[in-house]
Amino acid sequence: MAEAAATIRMRGAGYYSAHTTGAKLVIDRATPLALAAIRAMDLSGAAPFAIADFGAADGGTSLGLHRAVLTELRRRAPDRALTLTHTDLPHNDFATVFQLVQGRLDGREGLGVPGVFSFASGTSFYDPIFPPGTLALGFSATAMHWLSRLPAPIAEAVHAVFATGATQAAFREQAAADWQRILLLRAVELAPGGALVFANFSTDEAGRYLGATGGRNMHACFGAHWRALHAAGAITEAEVARATFPQYYRSVAEFRAPFEDAAGPVRQAGLRLEECFTLVTPCPYAARFAAGEWTAAEFARAYVPTLRSWSESTFLGALDPARPAADRQALIDRFYAAYEADVAADPAGHGMDYVHCLMRVSKAA
Amino acid sequence: MAEAAATIRMRGAGYYSAHTTGAKLVIDRATPLALAAIRAMDLSGAAPFAIADFGAADGGTSLGLHRAVLTELRRRAPDRALTLTHTDLPHNDFATVFQLVQGRLDGREGLGVPGVFSFASGTSFYDPIFPPGTLALGFSATAMHWLSRLPAPIAEAVHAVFATGATQAAFREQAAADWQRILLLRAVELAPGGALVFANFSTDEAGRYLGATGGRNMHACFGAHWRALHAAGAITEAEVARATFPQYYRSVAEFRAPFEDAAGPVRQAGLRLEECFTLVTPCPYAARFAAGEWTAAEFARAYVPTLRSWSESTFLGALDPARPAADRQALIDRFYAAYEADVAADPAGHGMDYVHCLMRVSKAA
Repeated sequence: MAEAAATIRMRGAGYYSAHTTGAKLVIDRATPLALAAIRAMDLSGAAPFAIADFGAADGGTSLGLHRAVLTELRRRAPDRALTLTHTDLPHNDFATVFQLVQGRLDGREGLGVPGVFSFASGTSFYDPIFPPGTLALGFSATAMHWLSRLPAPIAEAVHAVFATGATQAAFREQAAADWQRILLLRAVELAPGGALVFANFSTDEAGRYLGATGGRNMHACFGAHWRALHAAGAITEAEVARATFPQYYRSVAEFRAPFEDAAGPVRQAGLRLEECFTLVTPCPYAARFAAGEWTAAEFARAYVPTLRSWSESTFLGALDPARPAADRQALIDRFYAAYEADVAADPAGHGMDYVHCLMRVSKAA
Repeated sequence: MAEAAATIRMRGAGYYSAHTTGAKLVIDRATPLALAAIRAMDLSGAAPFAIADFGAADGGTSLGLHRAVLTELRRRAPDRALTLTHTDLPHNDFATVFQLVQGRLDGREGLGVPGVFSFASGTSFYDPIFPPGTLALGFSATAMHWLSRLPAPIAEAVHAVFATGATQAAFREQAAADWQRILLLRAVELAPGGALVFANFSTDEAGRYLGATGGRNMHACFGAHWRALHAAGAITEAEVARATFPQYYRSVAEFRAPFEDAAGPVRQAGLRLEECFTLVTPCPYAARFAAGEWTAAEFARAYVPTLRSWSESTFLGALDPARPAADRQALIDRFYAAYEADVAADPAGHGMDYVHCLMRVSKAA
């Protein structure tokens, strides 16, 4: 995997899943697709039934889906060996994944399906992960908006949603190439009759995307607070420019495209799109504030960590490595503290609604 | 796995393999056994050829063995998928394993065999790890002296080598039960014609064992320095007593026993002992001191960390959890500093020669 991989880093020790309630809600909505995928399968094979969770972070948000799927598989094929492999980048916190699966993290429910063989892979989903023809069901949620490389820095913003012209085109092309690459790699890994279920961040038919569903635009807020550090003399112009998420929120048309080209490599590899729809999952933090459960300060204190869980590595990586590590961390703390103060002072419209495209893909039997 | 698992912990971020040069030398001596094991195999199968490294810690000491085996497999069966799974306890530093395998740790050579599918398992080797019949070659070095549970505390010493009477018997029986359990679990996992290669700590025919080959007895030194903390009023009597390694160095006869009982479960499961011999690997640190490369202080500074890499968790776990974490760490630092000062002041006879029993086991085809 390319340079982006070195800097993408979820916060560890269960922080990620503990602070991403919304991500779990999305996966709960994807669970019927995974159950539909296995319902369509012949389970009479002798090889282990292998499930993968691509880009699983600490594994906490998807345990419920895997519990449902594995319970159903165990019921229908009681004698078949079942494996579950969590994949992510090599520096991921896999110790937390295993401890979560085994129910060894305090206060967190484990997988709870006995006899499932649990593995991890530290290989990027832009590379082959499984031997050809060995995967029965691949799942991935809220991971594949991370591109294999940053196609271009965006000087004027932190995210491709604000890119224009040639920069926007560079992101669009990288995202298309990466999506095809992911699908072709998985097509090789899937056994005949296997399936993929995705819940990927998307720009939906109404132009909505993560943190931009009508209220304050989250990526605009990120950008404003980052530039504010520069206005205050705390960071350099180069550091402002370097903060660019190597991400792209594909449109539904972009997700569908490889499946609509009958002569294209994805269809030729045997993959078919069975279901595809978008889904807006309201920010659970904003909902609790709106319901009067929280004060503005409480909302801000709960909400900003969910942004931090996945965004911190990009901002930290934008800072000059010549700065002492403690200084860099202090700048990042200051950045999120300012964002939190902003939300606490003027909470209206803040919130990170999730916008996903859910897909179920089958491979010809 | 029982209570011992929660406290066994190798130091992370590559510390383990960087400070266990001797462990790597042993594995280099075990490499011919692994090559002999695959030489005897029919490689014409279609399923992935799966290799496991049980209790691999950070994976650094065995990468050379796996490189040799995988290179030979790739030569003989160029089209067969090859997998390598590092296993250890769930809290192990798997991020370092993956980064090492992929050659992403500064100054450390990676696996270097392209196209090998790399996985990890956080499941104890006292539990099933792989689906039945899917493992081609299992390897384990310097791990299976860790028992599944502490059979009894040893008030008067820190290690079973000094246990007597009923306490000694309890350790011996636990070690026998654990060894049979390991073998029976692996017998299920192995494909027909598969093999196991072990380099386990042992008490050899001359009564030698780790750190006890004629000079100062390492476990006696551990015990003396631990009791010295009590004599100085730094730790309590209960803390002295609680420091007991959940370990046992099996004799060759004990390692052989399950294979010599033709009606016993291990033989009935299809396992046969093909090779078995003991090996003393001189302490590489003591050797450099003896050769005049190091002063006594330099020797002590290099030597004590290799002890610390695997012993720290036992001593840390013996301290009262009511002590603040920083105080516990300070006591442990003081303990190893005293050991280091002891070695620096009077280096003669210090050293941790490794004493291993190397075994090659086959499963009937």
